[in-house]
Amino acid sequence: MPIFQAPTKDLQFVLQDLLKVGEQDIPGFDDLDAEFTSAVLEEAGKVANEVLAPLNVVGDTEGCTLENGVVRTPKGFKEAFDVMKEGGWTAMDCAEEYGGQGLPYVMHSAAQEPFVSANMAFNMYQGLTHGAYSAIYAHGSDEQKQKYLPKMVTCEWTGTMNLTEPHCGTDLGLMRTKAVPQDDGTFKVSGQKIFISAGDHDMAENIIHLVLAKIPGGPDGIKGVSLFIVPKFLVNEDGSLGQRNGVSVGKIEEKMGIHGNSTCVMNYDEATGYLIGEEHKGMRAMFTMMNEARLGVGLQGYAQAEVAYQNAVAYANDRLQGRDVTGAKNPEGPADPLIVHPDIRRNLMDQKSFVEGARAFTMWGALLIDRAHRNEDKDADGLISLLTPVLKGFLTDKGFEYATAAQQVYGGHGYIEEWGMSQFARDARIAMIYEGANGVQALDLVGRKLAQDGGKHVMAFFDMVKTFIKENEGNEDLKNGFLDPLKAASKDLQAAGMYFMQNGMKNPNHALSGSYDFMHMMGHVCLGLMWAKMAKASMEALEGGASDVDFYQSKIATGRYYMARQLPATGMHLARINTGADTVMALEATQF
Amino acid sequence: MPIFQAPTKDLQFVLQDLLKVGEQDIPGFDDLDAEFTSAVLEEAGKVANEVLAPLNVVGDTEGCTLENGVVRTPKGFKEAFDVMKEGGWTAMDCAEEYGGQGLPYVMHSAAQEPFVSANMAFNMYQGLTHGAYSAIYAHGSDEQKQKYLPKMVTCEWTGTMNLTEPHCGTDLGLMRTKAVPQDDGTFKVSGQKIFISAGDHDMAENIIHLVLAKIPGGPDGIKGVSLFIVPKFLVNEDGSLGQRNGVSVGKIEEKMGIHGNSTCVMNYDEATGYLIGEEHKGMRAMFTMMNEARLGVGLQGYAQAEVAYQNAVAYANDRLQGRDVTGAKNPEGPADPLIVHPDIRRNLMDQKSFVEGARAFTMWGALLIDRAHRNEDKDADGLISLLTPVLKGFLTDKGFEYATAAQQVYGGHGYIEEWGMSQFARDARIAMIYEGANGVQALDLVGRKLAQDGGKHVMAFFDMVKTFIKENEGNEDLKNGFLDPLKAASKDLQAAGMYFMQNGMKNPNHALSGSYDFMHMMGHVCLGLMWAKMAKASMEALEGGASDVDFYQSKIATGRYYMARQLPATGMHLARINTGADTVMALEATQF
Repeated sequence: MPIFQAPTKDLQFVLQDLLKVGEQDIPGFDDLDAEFTSAVLEEAGKVANEVLAPLNVVGDTEGCTLENGVVRTPKGFKEAFDVMKEGGWTAMDCAEEYGGQGLPYVMHSAAQEPFVSANMAFNMYQGLTHGAYSAIYAHGSDEQKQKYLPKMVTCEWTGTMNLTEPHCGTDLGLMRTKAVPQDDGTFKVSGQKIFISAGDHDMAENIIHLVLAKIPGGPDGIKGVSLFIVPKFLVNEDGSLGQRNGVSVGKIEEKMGIHGNSTCVMNYDEATGYLIGEEHKGMRAMFTMMNEARLGVGLQGYAQAEVAYQNAVAYANDRLQGRDVTGAKNPEGPADPLIVHPDIRRNLMDQKSFVEGARAFTMWGALLIDRAHRNEDKDADGLISLLTPVLKGFLTDKGFEYATAAQQVYGGHGYIEEWGMSQFARDARIAMIYEGANGVQALDLVGRKLAQDGGKHVMAFFDMVKTFIKENEGNEDLKNGFLDPLKAASKDLQAAGMYFMQNGMKNPNHALSGSYDFMHMMGHVCLGLMWAKMAKASMEALEGGASDVDFYQSKIATGRYYMARQLPATGMHLARINTGADTVMALEATQF
Repeated sequence: MPIFQAPTKDLQFVLQDLLKVGEQDIPGFDDLDAEFTSAVLEEAGKVANEVLAPLNVVGDTEGCTLENGVVRTPKGFKEAFDVMKEGGWTAMDCAEEYGGQGLPYVMHSAAQEPFVSANMAFNMYQGLTHGAYSAIYAHGSDEQKQKYLPKMVTCEWTGTMNLTEPHCGTDLGLMRTKAVPQDDGTFKVSGQKIFISAGDHDMAENIIHLVLAKIPGGPDGIKGVSLFIVPKFLVNEDGSLGQRNGVSVGKIEEKMGIHGNSTCVMNYDEATGYLIGEEHKGMRAMFTMMNEARLGVGLQGYAQAEVAYQNAVAYANDRLQGRDVTGAKNPEGPADPLIVHPDIRRNLMDQKSFVEGARAFTMWGALLIDRAHRNEDKDADGLISLLTPVLKGFLTDKGFEYATAAQQVYGGHGYIEEWGMSQFARDARIAMIYEGANGVQALDLVGRKLAQDGGKHVMAFFDMVKTFIKENEGNEDLKNGFLDPLKAASKDLQAAGMYFMQNGMKNPNHALSGSYDFMHMMGHVCLGLMWAKMAKASMEALEGGASDVDFYQSKIATGRYYMARQLPATGMHLARINTGADTVMALEATQF
């Protein structure tokens, strides 16, 4: 049985030592003092450790089943979902007027992390509801908000997002689902949607499907797409549930992982739908909350690496195999624990330094979202738009890589389902795909975000890195191990951006051929910046006489590892980018 | 249903254009002219395409079952196994005196590749038998050889290798299985072995288990391990099957992949065993055939990437999504095929350039094994010993990486089992683990092979690279795209070796902390060397007026991609290595 302990202290460190959330000049942040955030994280951690984690293997093994049109979730899921509802964990950052607690998004994100590590498939039921809530909140009419949001905030009703169809995913302009206007102002929605997470289940009274569809006669392609509310059960005027709508589950998909979540093929057969916002503006409505949704998926990436890492460490300390080459560490025993071996440490340090850096990056991103929304700060909004594809693409690629690396520590036992390490890797794999496959994230970053608002946001990003380096270069402890590598990596990133500018004009393929490398480069620079700041915060804590010397020293040592061992990847990515499109585009399609 | 077409032409190119097997001065190689190797590859390809590939999904879905102590293989496996036996595919490089065809190992390896791509789990039944055959052939008595080998050559009886126990894998000195000598010269073997591939099944009359065990009173640790033949059914004097031996299946392991292979927990309960070779020399006997076994696993790595790549290419040509940014390529259709997009090409070129380089590297390794055995060439033996951990570790890491990359091309469909891409990734994952986990390969390479025979073999490797560059530097077509990057990468590798020499003496952890990076660096240099040679061979073929211009031009273009886009990884690995052990070993075990 795999273990899990919510990394409460590490989360608290990011919120308080690094981001100093209590001191931020953002409406609602006054509450976020150390005592409050610690109390929230402690409670979230308890639920994750005691309620969700024990159901992770159950969810994987049992999966969801479809019987006579009804989806059953794995044993124990319903009871656990009740615990989540009762604890208010589904309502944390939702608006108070609809029953939420109105807390900042960064607090919500920090509390979510252990839930995702403990049971990713389970947590998606509320995650999707949160996404649907946000879209209705931003674009729905007052009547729609009154009707649906209070029940969605509590997860009495859950939500889904219906975008993909069998023949189209990324290119939603090809969509075939139709919404035919009716005399009463409603629409009849017909078509098939696939890969619908939490598409149906037995843990809520009603399911509010948000469905993208085309109104006949509208513009071609993506400009003719509208967004609809299609409830599983129609909702009467008084809020009670009415008749069953024309929506049914075609099948549950057999997937590589996240078996605990019911990923459904959904069939809409003249189902009654209610337009959200304006006709043909569906994409805008669906993508308003894109930054949050993608940040949430990035979080899934590193959260799976976190739980896999915890297990790998436990196994490396427990499993006796071979001897330390510099002298036995467990001379009384038949062998030394795995953790004495340098290559095991190299692997564990890769995982640890990534996960902790990724956590800081994600929470910083969440803070930027709060600043953008609560302060209506356009610069923060531009910066988080720039960083979103990096958060999603880089953190899920690396999250999967390190979940797999943790599995490797177990040797053959890592491949046996009984030990649970395979599940972490299989579950983490989806995060690279959904909410925009990572290649699409790279395209979004290089093809769109770099040049957005005249390149203002990427320049601001570079300025931020430069300013931090400059302000701290008198700090000898930071300079060598942190600032110098950060400067070098940032220079590589700027050189890549320069290459795109100089060559992408003549031929955009010169830029797009390097988009994936650029996304990874930028991820490294972001994590490098986070580590430099975390090291600084740790040094300050130690100088200030913090009692937990061990904790802060580990942070600094882990950061030094990241800067020394991970940041050099930027040089490789730059070298690849500088070769342009020639070798990438050389073959005819038939020559592959 | 996934597709597969054996890459017959590519294999023939490696055997004839690159390795020129027919011209090698090695006993038995005279037969390997172009006509012969082509005929063998064509026939092997047919079996792979028509018999094995259609059973791959079946094997994954059905898996193996244990009913009343009897293991049942998936539907159709037995019939397919009969096809393999009847075609002589299990006997190709076995000794003629025991019914084999006595063909070179390189021919065997080339013919095996499509089998492994088509159905890795299935092919392991004969693969393990081949390993057991080789150990008995090398170390068994004449009587043992006469008794077991003829039936193992034909796979009427299959074989297994029993090393791992629940508490020990890499460190076999901790082994507990006991072999108690009996008055009649046999032994009673008792203990539990786990992860036994093809441990039991219904496709052969008998199963010949090779079991490592300790004879009581022998030396402690690894020096007290002996190797035994433990047949499932004892074999009578006349070769007929006698009574059932004291060996039984504890359970079939639930694994992440290779479900078609019965990976068993095997219980030995005073089973009758026959010593192979000398007492306490079991490890030597078991590891004699290590180079072949590990090369075979490296082949599994890239062979899974090959079949995954073929499917990714088909999907990328078929799936319409988005438009080429430089202008529509399919203006009549609703969208362009995926393959127009630079990042899809970047991904496919990564896969293609790796697989083709890996194939050349593996077949070159097989040729070295032939040279070592058939010519008793000590230099070839030393070189293949050096390269073996690279073949195993690098090719399986990258094989999994690219099987996963191929899955990514499918977007959401890649995560759904129905499309088969998940299976390729799940199956490929095991190759990084078994036959010595890849971290152990890196340790073997840096801790042992580099310094073997006074460092003679690694020096010979560098000389070979240098000589090739020197001999061809007048060739302008080669110089820029191939020789220059190869020279730079080789220089990085030498610098890493130098770092190990200078720093590993004071503290071996400075070398071992960089062992994994070194293994990957060396893999890149080997593939770079292969690509430079393949490019040269292709240029010569074109100059010689070869009719298939398209084929050779693709080879050169694919090679240029590898040199430009993959080789720069050596710089990153060197930078990591040069940071030594300090950051790797900084934390106390309790600080992880």
